[in-house]
Order: sequence, then C-alpha cells, then structure tokens
Amino acid sequence: MAQGRVLWFTGLSGAGKSTLASALYQELVSAGISAELLDGDAVRENLSKGLGFSKADRDMNVRRIGFVAGLLARHGVTVLVSAISPYNDTRREVLASLPNATEIFVDAPLSTVTERDVKGLYLKAIAGEIAHFTGVSDPYEAPTQPDLHLKTDLLSVDACLEQLRPLAGLHQEVPA
Amino acid sequence: MAQGRVLWFTGLSGAGKSTLASALYQELVSAGISAELLDGDAVRENLSKGLGFSKADRDMNVRRIGFVAGLLARHGVTVLVSAISPYNDTRREVLASLPNATEIFVDAPLSTVTERDVKGLYLKAIAGEIAHFTGVSDPYEAPTQPDLHLKTDLLSVDACLEQLRPLAGLHQEVPA
Repeated sequence: MAQGRVLWFTGLSGAGKSTLASALYQELVSAGISAELLDGDAVRENLSKGLGFSKADRDMNVRRIGFVAGLLARHGVTVLVSAISPYNDTRREVLASLPNATEIFVDAPLSTVTERDVKGLYLKAIAGEIAHFTGVSDPYEAPTQPDLHLKTDLLSVDACLEQLRPLAGLHQEVPA
Repeated sequence: MAQGRVLWFTGLSGAGKSTLASALYQELVSAGISAELLDGDAVRENLSKGLGFSKADRDMNVRRIGFVAGLLARHGVTVLVSAISPYNDTRREVLASLPNATEIFVDAPLSTVTERDVKGLYLKAIAGEIAHFTGVSDPYEAPTQPDLHLKTDLLSVDACLEQLRPLAGLHQEVPA
C-alpha cells in the first residue's frame, strides 16, 4: 500500500481553506482516489471537545489532526486537512512527522476576509466581542516556506485548483 | 472500496485484549490485509491527553476511538480496537454507529487478572492506592450480547484466535 499524501491547508478563517479542500476532495472522489477531508471544526467536535483556544489547546488539536491524518495516510488515503493551525512551530513539527505532506498557505489579507466575513465573526472579533479570534485577537503565524502559496484575493478557485491538482496526485485536466 | 471490519475488544485490564488483538493484527498483516490496531492506552496518549477516568471522560475516549475507527474502516481498513470501554451504553452506541463492527468480550474473572497482574496494578488498586481502577474501584459492565465471548482463563491464545479469524475475515488455517 503506497503512503497517502497529506495536503495541509492553513490560513485565516474565511481565506478559502475549506472551499478549496472540498472542491479538491470532490475531484479526488470522482477520480476514484481514496480521500478523506479532515476539517478543523469537525475534528474539534469529534476529537477535541473541551479544548479551548489557548496556544496549548490549539496545538493539541493540530497534533490530534496530524495523528489521524497519519493513520489514514499509512493506508494509502489522500488526506486533505483544512485547519487554521496558526502556530508555525507546531504545524511544521506535525507536517514533518507525516511522510508525504505538503503545506498549503491559503492566504487572504485581513481586509479581504473581513469583507467576506463568511461566518459573520470578524466584525464581532474586531468589536472585541470574541476573544482568541485568529488574525484579530489571536496570532496567525504565516508559513515561511509553504509548498504552495495561494493568494485567494487574487486567484479564482479554478486557478487555485490548477495548482493543487499535482500536489494531490491528480492529472491536470486537458483543455478542450 | 469495501467497508472495513471493526473488531472491538472489551474487558478488564489484563484479560488479554491487547495480546489477542496484537496476534490477530500480525496475522492480518501477514495475509496482506490492510489493518490497524487502536490500543486504548496509545489512543489516550494521542487523542485524549487531559481526560481522566470519570464516566464522562472514559465515554469521550471511547467515542473518539470509535470516530477514528470509523474513518479507517470507511477506507477498507480492518480495525482492531483494544480498549477496556467499561460502560455498556456508550460501547453499544459507538458499535452501532460503525457499519461492520463486532463486540468481543475478552473475559477473565477478577481473581485471574489479579493473579496475572500484568502491569502490577491490581494489588495497588485493591490496597486502595489507585482510584477509578476498572473492576476494583470503578465499574466494568460486561457485554450482555457480545458477538464473541472469550473466556481467557479457560482458553489458550490459539483457541481464541481460531474463533477470532472468521470475524476478521481470515480463513481458518487448515490443520496439517
């Protein structure tokens, strides 16, 4: 059984991690590739209930996602992780522990994610109503050498997917 | 991808869960079957650090193991879970959520596991030095209708494995 790839999407809430990971997941499934999507929020519900948003708790959540991703990848599953994973040291440590992992920086400036405000949370965070909100009241440490850097304020989803497919082991679609 | 089987070994510490699960795991790997062993203690280290031994915490640990077992089984992996999992309701609930799961009661009386005392803990627990020790100072609710009931004080490891192989999808070895 070949080792599965792990694509780790990191970035601010609203930057586009889940959008891209979900779209890529659909393409993998359509191509008959065994894939799993580990979404930070869903994993938190199932594996990390009770953990908060301190550095220690966020790091533990990231390590748990890494543990599960590793188990799946061992069995040939392509794993797409979509998780803010804001701390560089822990993210790097977890990625280094996975044999076939790439770090994908889903990057949009605070002005863009605030404008999108997908979950309606940035304005509250900026108003001081949400503590430990990454990018506003909690740090986000951007990757220093990501395997892929996607500026989602400048690139379309399709343009991002074009760059993601090779990392996921998908052949590029040939233009008609 | 066919749904993987989940074999859930429940029983007291020292009853033989890990011995049987490990031996079966080796047979599966030798047979070229994609398998994973989820050991309660190891999983606790990786997924449940900080949880204690109250009913709520034990139940949460069991649910987390079930979540991970489900992810692996979805991708065709045969999963062997070795975990005390002392509470009947939660164990049943988790097993019911897994499409292809069997409950294996690894059963040895307290007198036997105390005599074995694999980890040297029963005497301490009986002396009142360990709180929340299953079977002594914490409850163990035996399965009422397990798929397999192995009395390890009466059966050899080989005799147990003979009964386990069909549940794991292994053909019986033909006697020479």
